[in-house]
Amino acid sequence: MANRLGRQTVALEKPVYLVSHAAVGGKKEGEGPLKRYFDHLSDDDTFGQKSWEKAECQMQKLALQIALEKWGRTGQELDYLLAGDLLNQCISSSFAARESQVPFWGLYGACSTMGESIALAALLIDGGAARTAGAVTSSHFCTAERQYRNPLAYGGQRTPTAQWTATAAGCTILAQEGRGPRVTHITTGIIVDKGIKDANNMGAAMAPAAADTLAAHFRETGRDPSYYDLIATGDLGQLGREILLELTRDEGYDLTGCHNDCGLLLYDRQQQDVHCGGSGCGCAGSVLNGYLLRQMAEGTLKKILFCPTGALLSPTSTQQGESIPSIAHAVSIEV
Amino acid sequence: MANRLGRQTVALEKPVYLVSHAAVGGKKEGEGPLKRYFDHLSDDDTFGQKSWEKAECQMQKLALQIALEKWGRTGQELDYLLAGDLLNQCISSSFAARESQVPFWGLYGACSTMGESIALAALLIDGGAARTAGAVTSSHFCTAERQYRNPLAYGGQRTPTAQWTATAAGCTILAQEGRGPRVTHITTGIIVDKGIKDANNMGAAMAPAAADTLAAHFRETGRDPSYYDLIATGDLGQLGREILLELTRDEGYDLTGCHNDCGLLLYDRQQQDVHCGGSGCGCAGSVLNGYLLRQMAEGTLKKILFCPTGALLSPTSTQQGESIPSIAHAVSIEV
Repeated sequence: MANRLGRQTVALEKPVYLVSHAAVGGKKEGEGPLKRYFDHLSDDDTFGQKSWEKAECQMQKLALQIALEKWGRTGQELDYLLAGDLLNQCISSSFAARESQVPFWGLYGACSTMGESIALAALLIDGGAARTAGAVTSSHFCTAERQYRNPLAYGGQRTPTAQWTATAAGCTILAQEGRGPRVTHITTGIIVDKGIKDANNMGAAMAPAAADTLAAHFRETGRDPSYYDLIATGDLGQLGREILLELTRDEGYDLTGCHNDCGLLLYDRQQQDVHCGGSGCGCAGSVLNGYLLRQMAEGTLKKILFCPTGALLSPTSTQQGESIPSIAHAVSIEV
Repeated sequence: MANRLGRQTVALEKPVYLVSHAAVGGKKEGEGPLKRYFDHLSDDDTFGQKSWEKAECQMQKLALQIALEKWGRTGQELDYLLAGDLLNQCISSSFAARESQVPFWGLYGACSTMGESIALAALLIDGGAARTAGAVTSSHFCTAERQYRNPLAYGGQRTPTAQWTATAAGCTILAQEGRGPRVTHITTGIIVDKGIKDANNMGAAMAPAAADTLAAHFRETGRDPSYYDLIATGDLGQLGREILLELTRDEGYDLTGCHNDCGLLLYDRQQQDVHCGGSGCGCAGSVLNGYLLRQMAEGTLKKILFCPTGALLSPTSTQQGESIPSIAHAVSIEV
C-alpha cells in the first residue's frame, strides 16, 4: 500500500524491483558515448522492416524480447504490459504488443512515457493488482521527423534549439520479487504550460514541467537534490537543462553537480550534430535501460531520480497557434 | 489490495465508488434516444471554440467541471486525473487538463479509454496510491472525420459498415469513500487482431477483442453472462454486436438478452443515419456517464459489465497495409 506524502508524491511500501531491462538503438546511437551500454544496436535503421513505423515497432519488440530473455522468463510471466510512443495512435506500442498476449495498458505521455510506464507499473505492483509488469517505449528519428516536421527528403535546415529524436527503445521489467534496484517514490507530474509556442524549442517548453515536478518531489519527500547521485531528466537538451537549473535555483534547490539530461548523455554534441541534444521517448528509455541501470548494477550509481519530460503537442495544435503543455514524472530508484 | 483471479481479472478488495459522473454531447446526440440523460447538450458543435479540436477539448473540460460540481468538490480534491482521446497526441485530454492542476496520467486506448481510465483509477485507489481519481475521455465527429478519413467538406459516401463518431465526452469520479455504485472487478484486455484491414468496419475488427475479454471475465470470475443486468460493449455497432454474439456463443457464453452496445443505444439508427451505430471514445464515455450510471442510481440496473472496445489503428498503419489490432477492457460495476 503506497503512502501518500503530498499532492504529487507517493512512497511505495512494498519493494518493487527493476528485475530486468534492455536498450535498443540505431546507427547514430551506436556511434555515441553510450554505445557499449546498449543490448542491441543496428547499423540499419530500418531494422529489416519495410517502413520506418514498422522499424520502430520492431525496436519495441526487440527491447521487450531482450528484457524477457535477460530475466529468464516469457511474456506469460508478465501480468501487465504498459507502453506508449510518439506516433499517431501509438501504433509502435500497439503493434509491438499485438503478439505478446499480455494484458495491455496503452499510455500517452510523449517523451515522459518511460517514467509514466514505470511509475504506473510500480503502483500496480505495490497495490497488489500485479506481481510483475513490463514498461516499454520507443522513438525513431525518421518516423518522428516526417510526422512532426517535414518529409525526410525535404532536407530543411534545423534551428539551433532543435533536438534530435533518438532511434531507440527501452524496456524495464518490474516485479515484487527478485533482485535489482528498487522503485521507492513516485512523483506524478501536473501539466505545465508557460506559453512556449516554438515546436523547435522543446527544451524550453518542457523545462518548467521538470522544475515543477522536481520541486514537488524535494518538498514532499523533504529531500535535498544532493540526496541523489544523479537526477536524470529525459530530454531537455542543453538549453532546457540551463532553464531547469535556473528555475529550480529560484525554488531554492541547487541541481548543479547532481543533474544531467538523457538527451545530453546519449550523443556527443561536438561530434554528432544533434544541436541541443537528444529527444524522443526512446532517448530517456534507452539511457535509463542501458546506461543508468547498468551503472546501478555496477555500483557506480546508488540513488537516482529519473525524471523524463514530455511535450504534449501535436502538429495540429501547433498549426492552431497553441502553446505546448508539458509534463514530467519523477521515479526514485535506489539500489 | 486487489485479488488476482486469473490472467486478466482482478477483484477489488476495498470499495471503490463511482461518486460522480457527467456526460456532455453535441447536436446529434441531443436528438437521440438518450437525450434526457446528458448533463450538457450543445446545439452548436463548436462549443463556442474556433476549431473542432478546441471544441473537443472544451467538451472534456465541461465533463470534468460538471462531474466535480455534482460531487461538490474541486479538482484540488482529485489525487489523479486519467484521460485520453482519439486525436493525434491526445491533445483534447492534455489541453483540457492543462488548467486542472491535477497530477495527470495520459492514456491511449482508443475507444476503450473510458474503460481503461476507470479501471486504472480504481486500481490506483484500491492499491492505496490515491483516495480519489477522475477518468475522462471524449471524441468529436468533426475532428475524427478529418483526422482518420476525409476533410469534412469532401462529402464522401459512407460505407454500410461505417459507424458515426460521437460528439461527446464523459467523466467519472472515483473515490474510496462516498456513495454510488462500486467497481468490483477489472478484466484487462489483451490485444487481439484477426486480420481485418477495413478501417470502415471497426465493429468487425473490435468484436473479437470484446469476445476475448468477456470470455476471460466469465471464465476467471466463474460468472455466467446472466449474472449481469446488462453487458454494455463500447461501440461495436450492429455488425460488431452480431459478430460478438456469435463468437461468445462459440466459447459457450450466451449474451442474447443481457447484451447491448453503447453505439446502438446512443442513436436511433432508423432516424439518424448513423449506419452501423455510434463510435468514438465519447460514445461509451457518455452512455456510461449519462444513461447507464443514472439507470443504476434509479435502481433500474443493479449489476453491469462495462466493456468498451478500442481499435488501435492509425491512418498510417492502414496506408501501410496493416490490419487493425483491437482491445477491450471490462469493468464490473454493482450497486
